Amino acid sequence: MDRDRFARQRDFILEIDKEKNVLRQTHLTNHGRRENDAEHAWHMTVTAYLLREYANEDVDIAHVMIMTLTHDLVEIYAGDTYAYDTAGKSDEHDREELAADKLFGRLPEDQAADLRAIWEEFEANQTPEARFAHAMDSVQPMMLNDSNGGQDWKAHGVHRAGPGGRNEVTRLGSTELADYIDERLDANVAEGNLMPDDAGHHLAARNYLEK
Amino acid sequence: MDRDRFARQRDFILEIDKEKNVLRQTHLTNHGRRENDAEHAWHMTVTAYLLREYANEDVDIAHVMIMTLTHDLVEIYAGDTYAYDTAGKSDEHDREELAADKLFGRLPEDQAADLRAIWEEFEANQTPEARFAHAMDSVQPMMLNDSNGGQDWKAHGVHRAGPGGRNEVTRLGSTELADYIDERLDANVAEGNLMPDDAGHHLAARNYLEK
Repeated sequence: MDRDRFARQRDFILEIDKEKNVLRQTHLTNHGRRENDAEHAWHMTVTAYLLREYANEDVDIAHVMIMTLTHDLVEIYAGDTYAYDTAGKSDEHDREELAADKLFGRLPEDQAADLRAIWEEFEANQTPEARFAHAMDSVQPMMLNDSNGGQDWKAHGVHRAGPGGRNEVTRLGSTELADYIDERLDANVAEGNLMPDDAGHHLAARNYLEK
Repeated sequence: MDRDRFARQRDFILEIDKEKNVLRQTHLTNHGRRENDAEHAWHMTVTAYLLREYANEDVDIAHVMIMTLTHDLVEIYAGDTYAYDTAGKSDEHDREELAADKLFGRLPEDQAADLRAIWEEFEANQTPEARFAHAMDSVQPMMLNDSNGGQDWKAHGVHRAGPGGRNEVTRLGSTELADYIDERLDANVAEGNLMPDDAGHHLAARNYLEK
Protein backbone atom coordinates (compact mmCIF):
# COMPACT_ATOMS: atom_id res chain seq x y z
CA MET A 1 0.00 0.00 0.00
CA ASP A 2 1.23 3.46 -0.95
CA ARG A 3 0.40 5.36 2.22
CA ASP A 4 0.35 8.81 0.57
CA ARG A 5 -2.14 7.54 -1.97
CA PHE A 6 -4.24 5.90 0.71
CA ALA A 7 -4.18 9.10 2.81
CA ARG A 8 -5.79 10.98 -0.08
CA GLN A 9 -8.41 8.27 -0.53
CA ARG A 10 -9.18 8.24 3.19
CA ASP A 11 -9.44 12.04 3.26
CA PHE A 12 -11.90 12.00 0.37
CA ILE A 13 -13.98 9.22 1.93
CA LEU A 14 -14.28 11.23 5.15
CA GLU A 15 -15.02 14.47 3.26
CA ILE A 16 -17.96 12.99 1.35
CA ASP A 17 -19.54 12.02 4.66
CA LYS A 18 -20.84 15.62 4.50
CA GLU A 19 -23.26 14.63 1.71
CA LYS A 20 -25.40 13.15 4.50
CA ASN A 21 -26.08 16.70 5.68
CA VAL A 22 -27.11 18.17 2.30
CA LEU A 23 -30.90 18.37 2.61
CA ARG A 24 -33.29 18.14 -0.31
CA GLN A 25 -36.85 19.41 -0.70
CA THR A 26 -38.21 15.87 -0.94
CA HIS A 27 -39.69 14.21 2.15
CA LEU A 28 -39.45 10.54 3.10
CA THR A 29 -42.51 8.30 2.73
CA ASN A 30 -45.27 8.46 5.35
CA HIS A 31 -44.76 12.25 5.54
CA GLY A 32 -41.33 11.80 7.09
CA ARG A 33 -38.50 14.26 7.46
CA ARG A 34 -36.59 15.79 4.56
CA GLU A 35 -34.32 13.48 2.62
CA ASN A 36 -30.59 14.10 2.27
CA ASP A 37 -28.42 13.64 -0.81
CA ALA A 38 -26.69 10.47 0.41
CA GLU A 39 -30.04 8.77 1.04
CA HIS A 40 -31.31 9.95 -2.34
CA ALA A 41 -28.20 8.57 -4.07
CA TRP A 42 -28.57 5.21 -2.30
CA HIS A 43 -32.28 4.97 -3.07
CA MET A 44 -32.03 5.94 -6.73
CA THR A 45 -29.15 3.49 -7.26
CA VAL A 46 -31.12 0.54 -5.89
CA THR A 47 -34.06 1.81 -7.96
CA ALA A 48 -31.85 1.87 -11.08
CA TYR A 49 -30.86 -1.74 -10.46
CA LEU A 50 -34.49 -2.84 -10.01
CA LEU A 51 -35.96 -0.84 -12.91
CA ARG A 52 -33.15 -1.31 -15.46
CA GLU A 53 -35.47 -3.42 -17.65
CA TYR A 54 -37.31 -0.19 -18.53
CA ALA A 55 -34.27 1.64 -19.93
CA ASN A 56 -34.78 2.65 -23.59
CA GLU A 57 -31.30 1.44 -24.51
CA ASP A 58 -28.99 -1.27 -23.20
CA VAL A 59 -27.12 0.15 -20.23
CA ASP A 60 -24.03 -0.96 -18.33
CA ILE A 61 -25.75 -1.06 -14.96
CA ALA A 62 -22.43 -0.90 -13.04
CA HIS A 63 -21.65 2.36 -14.80
CA VAL A 64 -25.13 3.70 -14.06
CA MET A 65 -24.69 2.75 -10.41
CA ILE A 66 -21.39 4.53 -9.80
CA MET A 67 -22.85 7.53 -11.66
CA THR A 68 -26.00 7.70 -9.54
CA LEU A 69 -24.00 7.15 -6.33
CA THR A 70 -21.71 10.11 -7.04
CA HIS A 71 -23.79 12.50 -9.20
CA ASP A 72 -24.62 14.86 -6.31
CA LEU A 73 -21.23 14.92 -4.55
CA VAL A 74 -20.53 18.43 -5.87
CA GLU A 75 -23.51 19.63 -3.81
CA ILE A 76 -21.37 19.20 -0.68
CA TYR A 77 -19.79 22.53 -1.70
CA ALA A 78 -22.37 23.89 -4.16
CA GLY A 79 -25.55 23.06 -2.21
CA ASP A 80 -28.75 21.49 -3.51
CA THR A 81 -30.75 23.62 -5.93
CA TYR A 82 -34.46 22.84 -6.03
CA ALA A 83 -35.52 21.58 -9.47
CA TYR A 84 -37.96 24.47 -9.95
CA ASP A 85 -35.76 27.29 -8.54
CA THR A 86 -35.12 29.29 -11.74
CA ALA A 87 -32.73 31.83 -10.19
CA GLY A 88 -30.67 29.14 -8.45
CA LYS A 89 -30.58 27.08 -11.63
CA SER A 90 -29.04 29.93 -13.69
CA ASP A 91 -25.56 29.70 -12.13
CA GLU A 92 -25.86 26.13 -10.84
CA HIS A 93 -23.48 24.64 -13.38
CA ASP A 94 -20.70 27.21 -12.75
CA ARG A 95 -20.96 26.67 -9.00
CA GLU A 96 -20.84 22.93 -9.49
CA GLU A 97 -17.77 23.06 -11.77
CA LEU A 98 -15.84 24.90 -9.05
CA ALA A 99 -17.07 22.43 -6.47
CA ALA A 100 -15.97 19.52 -8.66
CA ASP A 101 -12.44 20.94 -8.97
CA LYS A 102 -12.20 21.32 -5.22
CA LEU A 103 -13.78 18.01 -4.21
CA PHE A 104 -12.42 15.54 -6.75
CA GLY A 105 -9.00 17.25 -6.52
CA ARG A 106 -8.60 15.68 -3.08
CA LEU A 107 -8.32 12.20 -4.63
CA PRO A 108 -5.23 10.65 -6.26
CA GLU A 109 -5.02 12.01 -9.81
CA ASP A 110 -6.27 8.89 -11.61
CA GLN A 111 -9.32 8.58 -9.36
CA ALA A 112 -10.03 12.32 -9.51
CA ALA A 113 -10.09 12.08 -13.31
CA ASP A 114 -12.31 9.00 -13.18
CA LEU A 115 -14.99 10.49 -10.90
CA ARG A 116 -14.80 13.84 -12.69
CA ALA A 117 -15.40 12.16 -16.04
CA ILE A 118 -18.36 10.22 -14.64
CA TRP A 119 -19.87 13.43 -13.28
CA GLU A 120 -19.29 15.31 -16.56
CA GLU A 121 -20.92 12.43 -18.42
CA PHE A 122 -23.94 12.68 -16.15
CA GLU A 123 -24.16 16.44 -16.67
CA ALA A 124 -23.83 16.21 -20.46
CA ASN A 125 -26.57 13.54 -20.57
CA GLN A 126 -25.51 12.15 -23.95
CA THR A 127 -24.93 8.45 -23.18
CA PRO A 128 -27.46 5.68 -22.48
CA GLU A 129 -26.13 5.41 -18.90
CA ALA A 130 -26.43 9.16 -18.25
CA ARG A 131 -29.94 9.25 -19.72
CA PHE A 132 -31.08 6.38 -17.50
CA ALA A 133 -29.35 7.95 -14.47
CA HIS A 134 -31.27 11.18 -15.13
CA ALA A 135 -34.49 9.21 -15.33
CA MET A 136 -33.75 7.73 -11.90
CA ASP A 137 -32.91 11.18 -10.52
CA SER A 138 -36.52 12.18 -11.28
CA VAL A 139 -38.35 8.89 -10.74
CA GLN A 140 -37.10 8.38 -7.19
CA PRO A 141 -38.27 11.74 -5.71
CA MET A 142 -41.41 11.55 -7.86
CA MET A 143 -42.32 8.22 -6.25
CA LEU A 144 -41.69 9.56 -2.74
CA ASN A 145 -43.68 12.73 -3.34
CA ASP A 146 -46.54 10.87 -5.05
CA SER A 147 -46.72 8.49 -2.06
CA ASN A 148 -47.14 11.56 0.18
CA GLY A 149 -50.04 13.02 -1.80
CA GLY A 150 -47.78 15.49 -3.61
CA GLN A 151 -46.97 17.41 -0.43
CA ASP A 152 -43.71 18.84 -1.80
CA TRP A 153 -45.48 20.21 -4.88
CA LYS A 154 -48.24 21.69 -2.76
CA ALA A 155 -45.72 23.33 -0.43
CA HIS A 156 -44.01 25.05 -3.36
CA GLY A 157 -47.15 25.79 -5.45
CA VAL A 158 -45.73 23.82 -8.37
CA HIS A 159 -47.54 23.69 -11.73
CA ARG A 160 -47.78 20.48 -13.69
CA ALA A 161 -45.29 21.89 -16.23
CA GLY A 162 -42.51 21.69 -13.61
CA PRO A 163 -42.39 17.92 -13.11
CA GLY A 164 -43.89 17.58 -16.61
CA GLY A 165 -40.79 19.25 -18.06
CA ARG A 166 -38.46 17.08 -16.01
CA ASN A 167 -40.43 14.08 -17.20
CA GLU A 168 -39.37 14.82 -20.77
CA VAL A 169 -35.79 14.26 -19.55
CA THR A 170 -36.93 11.00 -17.95
CA ARG A 171 -38.46 10.05 -21.30
CA LEU A 172 -35.01 10.19 -22.94
CA GLY A 173 -33.93 7.40 -20.58
CA SER A 174 -37.17 5.45 -20.24
CA THR A 175 -40.35 5.94 -22.26
CA GLU A 176 -42.20 3.40 -20.14
CA LEU A 177 -41.42 5.13 -16.85
CA ALA A 178 -42.18 8.56 -18.35
CA ASP A 179 -45.61 7.31 -19.46
CA TYR A 180 -46.29 6.07 -15.95
CA ILE A 181 -45.21 9.40 -14.46
CA ASP A 182 -47.37 11.42 -16.85
CA GLU A 183 -50.37 9.43 -15.66
CA ARG A 184 -49.46 10.12 -12.04
CA LEU A 185 -48.97 13.83 -12.74
CA ASP A 186 -52.44 14.00 -14.29
CA ALA A 187 -53.85 12.22 -11.24
CA ASN A 188 -52.12 14.70 -8.93
CA VAL A 189 -53.57 17.63 -10.88
CA ALA A 190 -57.02 16.05 -10.55
CA GLU A 191 -56.49 15.67 -6.80
CA GLY A 192 -55.39 19.30 -6.43
CA ASN A 193 -51.77 18.49 -5.48
CA LEU A 194 -50.30 20.07 -8.61
CA MET A 195 -51.55 23.30 -10.17
CA PRO A 196 -52.88 22.95 -13.73
CA ASP A 197 -50.89 24.63 -16.50
CA ASP A 198 -51.83 27.73 -18.40
CA ALA A 199 -50.32 28.62 -21.79
CA GLY A 200 -47.19 30.15 -20.18
CA HIS A 201 -46.45 27.00 -18.27
CA HIS A 202 -46.78 24.82 -21.33
CA LEU A 203 -44.14 27.00 -22.92
CA ALA A 204 -41.89 26.67 -19.86
CA ALA A 205 -42.11 22.90 -20.10
CA ARG A 206 -41.06 22.96 -23.73
CA ASN A 207 -38.13 25.24 -22.96
CA TYR A 208 -36.93 22.83 -20.26
CA LEU A 209 -35.56 20.50 -22.89
CA GLU A 210 -34.11 23.23 -25.10
CA LYS A 211 -31.85 24.79 -22.46
CA MET B 1 -44.74 -2.48 -19.20
CA ASP B 2 -46.46 -5.18 -17.17
CA ARG B 3 -48.32 -3.03 -14.65
CA ASP B 4 -48.72 -5.78 -12.05
CA ARG B 5 -44.99 -6.40 -12.14
CA PHE B 6 -44.25 -2.68 -11.93
CA ALA B 7 -46.67 -2.29 -8.99
CA ARG B 8 -44.63 -4.82 -7.01
CA GLN B 9 -41.38 -3.07 -7.90
CA ARG B 10 -42.83 0.30 -6.92
CA ASP B 11 -44.14 -1.10 -3.63
CA PHE B 12 -40.71 -2.52 -2.78
CA ILE B 13 -38.94 0.72 -3.71
CA LEU B 14 -41.23 2.66 -1.39
CA GLU B 15 -40.93 0.07 1.39
CA ILE B 16 -37.12 0.23 1.47
CA ASP B 17 -37.37 3.98 2.05
CA LYS B 18 -37.68 2.87 5.70
CA GLU B 19 -33.99 1.91 5.76
CA LYS B 20 -33.33 5.66 6.14
CA ASN B 21 -34.84 5.43 9.61
CA VAL B 22 -32.82 2.44 10.87
CA LEU B 23 -30.23 4.07 13.12
CA ARG B 24 -26.76 2.69 13.76
CA GLN B 25 -24.38 3.21 16.70
CA THR B 26 -21.87 4.99 14.46
CA HIS B 27 -21.81 8.80 14.39
CA LEU B 28 -21.07 10.99 11.38
CA THR B 29 -17.73 12.81 11.13
CA ASN B 30 -17.15 15.96 13.18
CA HIS B 31 -19.11 14.37 16.06
CA GLY B 32 -22.32 14.49 14.05
CA ARG B 33 -25.61 12.71 14.61
CA ARG B 34 -26.05 8.92 14.39
CA GLU B 35 -25.78 7.41 10.94
CA ASN B 36 -28.62 5.42 9.38
CA ASP B 37 -28.41 2.23 7.34
CA ALA B 38 -29.12 3.88 3.99
CA GLU B 39 -26.31 6.39 4.49
CA HIS B 40 -23.99 3.61 5.62
CA ALA B 41 -24.83 1.55 2.52
CA TRP B 42 -24.22 4.52 0.23
CA HIS B 43 -20.95 5.43 1.92
CA MET B 44 -19.52 1.90 2.01
CA THR B 45 -20.43 1.37 -1.65
CA VAL B 46 -18.56 4.48 -2.81
CA THR B 47 -15.74 3.37 -0.48
CA ALA B 48 -15.71 -0.07 -2.13
CA TYR B 49 -15.39 1.54 -5.55
CA LEU B 50 -12.51 3.76 -4.40
CA LEU B 51 -10.62 1.12 -2.41
CA ARG B 52 -11.14 -1.87 -4.72
CA GLU B 53 -7.41 -1.92 -5.54
CA TYR B 54 -6.81 -3.27 -2.01
CA ALA B 55 -9.03 -6.35 -2.39
CA ASN B 56 -7.06 -9.57 -1.85
CA GLU B 57 -8.67 -11.19 -4.89
CA ASP B 58 -10.04 -9.90 -8.18
CA VAL B 59 -13.61 -8.75 -7.54
CA ASP B 60 -16.51 -7.93 -9.85
CA ILE B 61 -17.04 -4.43 -8.47
CA ALA B 62 -20.61 -4.18 -9.82
CA HIS B 63 -21.49 -7.30 -7.84
CA VAL B 64 -19.81 -5.90 -4.73
CA MET B 65 -21.76 -2.66 -5.18
CA ILE B 66 -25.23 -4.16 -5.40
CA MET B 67 -24.31 -6.36 -2.42
CA THR B 68 -23.18 -3.46 -0.24
CA LEU B 69 -26.20 -1.36 -1.28
CA THR B 70 -28.66 -4.06 -0.19
CA HIS B 71 -26.86 -6.01 2.57
CA ASP B 72 -28.72 -4.28 5.41
CA LEU B 73 -32.23 -4.16 3.91
CA VAL B 74 -33.38 -6.96 6.22
CA GLU B 75 -32.75 -4.61 9.16
CA ILE B 76 -35.88 -2.67 8.13
CA TYR B 77 -37.79 -5.47 9.86
CA ALA B 78 -35.06 -7.09 12.01
CA GLY B 79 -33.41 -3.90 13.34
CA ASP B 80 -29.71 -3.09 13.58
CA THR B 81 -27.73 -5.21 16.06
CA TYR B 82 -24.60 -3.52 17.41
CA ALA B 83 -21.48 -5.45 16.42
CA TYR B 84 -20.51 -6.09 20.06
CA ASP B 85 -24.01 -6.93 21.41
CA THR B 86 -23.51 -10.62 22.19
CA ALA B 87 -27.14 -11.30 23.23
CA GLY B 88 -28.55 -9.56 20.16
CA LYS B 89 -26.10 -11.38 17.93
CA SER B 90 -27.24 -14.83 19.13
CA ASP B 91 -30.60 -14.81 17.28
CA GLU B 92 -29.70 -12.17 14.69
CA HIS B 93 -29.51 -14.56 11.78
CA ASP B 94 -32.92 -16.17 12.49
CA ARG B 95 -34.56 -12.76 12.77
CA GLU B 96 -32.95 -11.68 9.54
CA GLU B 97 -34.03 -14.80 7.62
CA LEU B 98 -37.67 -14.08 8.52
CA ALA B 99 -37.19 -10.45 7.55
CA ALA B 100 -35.69 -11.47 4.20
CA ASP B 101 -38.71 -13.69 3.41
CA LYS B 102 -41.07 -10.84 4.20
CA LEU B 103 -39.17 -8.04 2.47
CA PHE B 104 -37.85 -9.65 -0.71
CA GLY B 105 -41.18 -11.47 -1.11
CA ARG B 106 -42.74 -8.15 -2.09
CA LEU B 107 -40.76 -8.12 -5.35
CA PRO B 108 -41.57 -10.02 -8.57
CA GLU B 109 -40.33 -13.59 -8.12
CA ASP B 110 -37.20 -13.29 -10.30
CA GLN B 111 -36.04 -10.13 -8.54
CA ALA B 112 -36.88 -11.51 -5.11
CA ALA B 113 -34.69 -14.53 -5.86
CA ASP B 114 -31.90 -12.31 -7.17
CA LEU B 115 -31.73 -9.99 -4.13
CA ARG B 116 -32.19 -12.92 -1.76
CA ALA B 117 -29.27 -14.77 -3.36
CA ILE B 118 -27.07 -11.66 -3.12
CA TRP B 119 -27.92 -11.27 0.57
CA GLU B 120 -27.32 -14.99 1.28
CA GLU B 121 -23.97 -14.71 -0.51
CA PHE B 122 -23.06 -11.76 1.71
CA GLU B 123 -24.07 -13.65 4.84
CA ALA B 124 -22.17 -16.82 3.89
CA ASN B 125 -19.04 -14.75 3.14
CA GLN B 126 -17.45 -17.38 0.91
CA THR B 127 -16.87 -15.46 -2.34
CA PRO B 128 -14.29 -12.76 -3.16
CA GLU B 129 -17.09 -10.19 -3.53
CA ALA B 130 -18.68 -11.09 -0.18
CA ARG B 131 -15.30 -10.98 1.57
CA PHE B 132 -14.55 -7.53 0.17
CA ALA B 133 -18.09 -6.34 1.00
CA HIS B 134 -17.56 -7.48 4.60
CA ALA B 135 -14.28 -5.59 4.69
CA MET B 136 -16.13 -2.42 3.60
CA ASP B 137 -18.83 -3.05 6.22
CA SER B 138 -16.10 -2.68 8.88
CA VAL B 139 -13.76 -0.18 7.25
CA GLN B 140 -16.43 2.49 6.70
CA PRO B 141 -17.66 2.78 10.34
CA MET B 142 -14.08 2.29 11.57
CA MET B 143 -12.98 5.34 9.56
CA LEU B 144 -15.86 7.45 10.88
CA ASN B 145 -15.29 6.43 14.47
CA ASP B 146 -11.51 6.87 14.24
CA SER B 147 -12.08 10.39 12.83
CA ASN B 148 -14.16 11.15 15.94
CA GLY B 149 -11.48 10.03 18.42
CA GLY B 150 -13.14 6.64 18.92
CA GLN B 151 -16.22 8.17 20.58
CA ASP B 152 -18.45 5.18 19.79
CA TRP B 153 -16.00 2.77 21.39
CA LYS B 154 -15.66 4.99 24.45
CA ALA B 155 -19.44 5.26 24.79
CA HIS B 156 -19.79 1.47 24.84
CA GLY B 157 -16.59 0.65 26.81
CA VAL B 158 -15.32 -1.51 23.97
CA HIS B 159 -12.11 -3.55 24.33
CA ARG B 160 -9.61 -3.75 21.48
CA ALA B 161 -10.61 -7.38 20.90
CA GLY B 162 -14.04 -6.22 19.64
CA PRO B 163 -12.95 -4.31 16.53
CA GLY B 164 -9.80 -6.46 16.50
CA GLY B 165 -11.97 -9.54 15.98
CA ARG B 166 -13.99 -7.85 13.25
CA ASN B 167 -10.72 -6.84 11.65
CA GLU B 168 -9.87 -10.51 11.12
CA VAL B 169 -12.98 -10.65 8.92
CA THR B 170 -11.74 -7.55 7.09
CA ARG B 171 -8.40 -9.34 6.62
CA LEU B 172 -10.16 -12.08 4.61
CA GLY B 173 -11.15 -9.39 2.10
CA SER B 174 -8.16 -7.05 2.29
CA THR B 175 -4.89 -7.70 4.09
CA GLU B 176 -3.68 -4.18 3.34
CA LEU B 177 -6.72 -2.48 4.87
CA ALA B 178 -6.66 -4.83 7.86
CA ASP B 179 -3.01 -3.93 8.53
CA TYR B 180 -3.92 -0.25 8.43
CA ILE B 181 -6.83 -0.80 10.82
CA ASP B 182 -4.70 -2.78 13.27
CA GLU B 183 -2.35 0.19 13.45
CA ARG B 184 -5.26 2.54 14.10
CA LEU B 185 -6.69 0.24 16.78
CA ASP B 186 -3.31 0.23 18.57
CA ALA B 187 -3.22 4.03 18.34
CA ASN B 188 -6.73 4.24 19.82
CA VAL B 189 -5.72 1.99 22.72
CA ALA B 190 -2.69 4.25 23.33
CA GLU B 191 -5.00 7.29 23.32
CA GLY B 192 -7.41 5.66 25.77
CA ASN B 193 -10.31 5.40 23.30
CA LEU B 194 -10.32 1.61 23.30
CA MET B 195 -9.80 -0.54 26.42
CA PRO B 196 -6.75 -2.82 26.27
CA ASP B 197 -7.38 -6.55 26.16
CA ASP B 198 -6.84 -9.06 28.93
CA ALA B 199 -6.46 -12.81 28.33
CA GLY B 200 -10.25 -13.32 28.13
CA HIS B 201 -10.63 -10.73 25.43
CA HIS B 202 -7.87 -12.23 23.34
CA LEU B 203 -9.81 -15.49 23.47
CA ALA B 204 -13.02 -13.69 22.43
CA ALA B 205 -11.27 -12.25 19.41
CA ARG B 206 -10.05 -15.68 18.36
CA ASN B 207 -13.54 -17.14 18.76
CA TYR B 208 -14.99 -14.41 16.55
CA LEU B 209 -13.66 -16.17 13.49
CA GLU B 210 -14.56 -19.67 14.60
CA LYS B 211 -18.29 -19.04 15.02
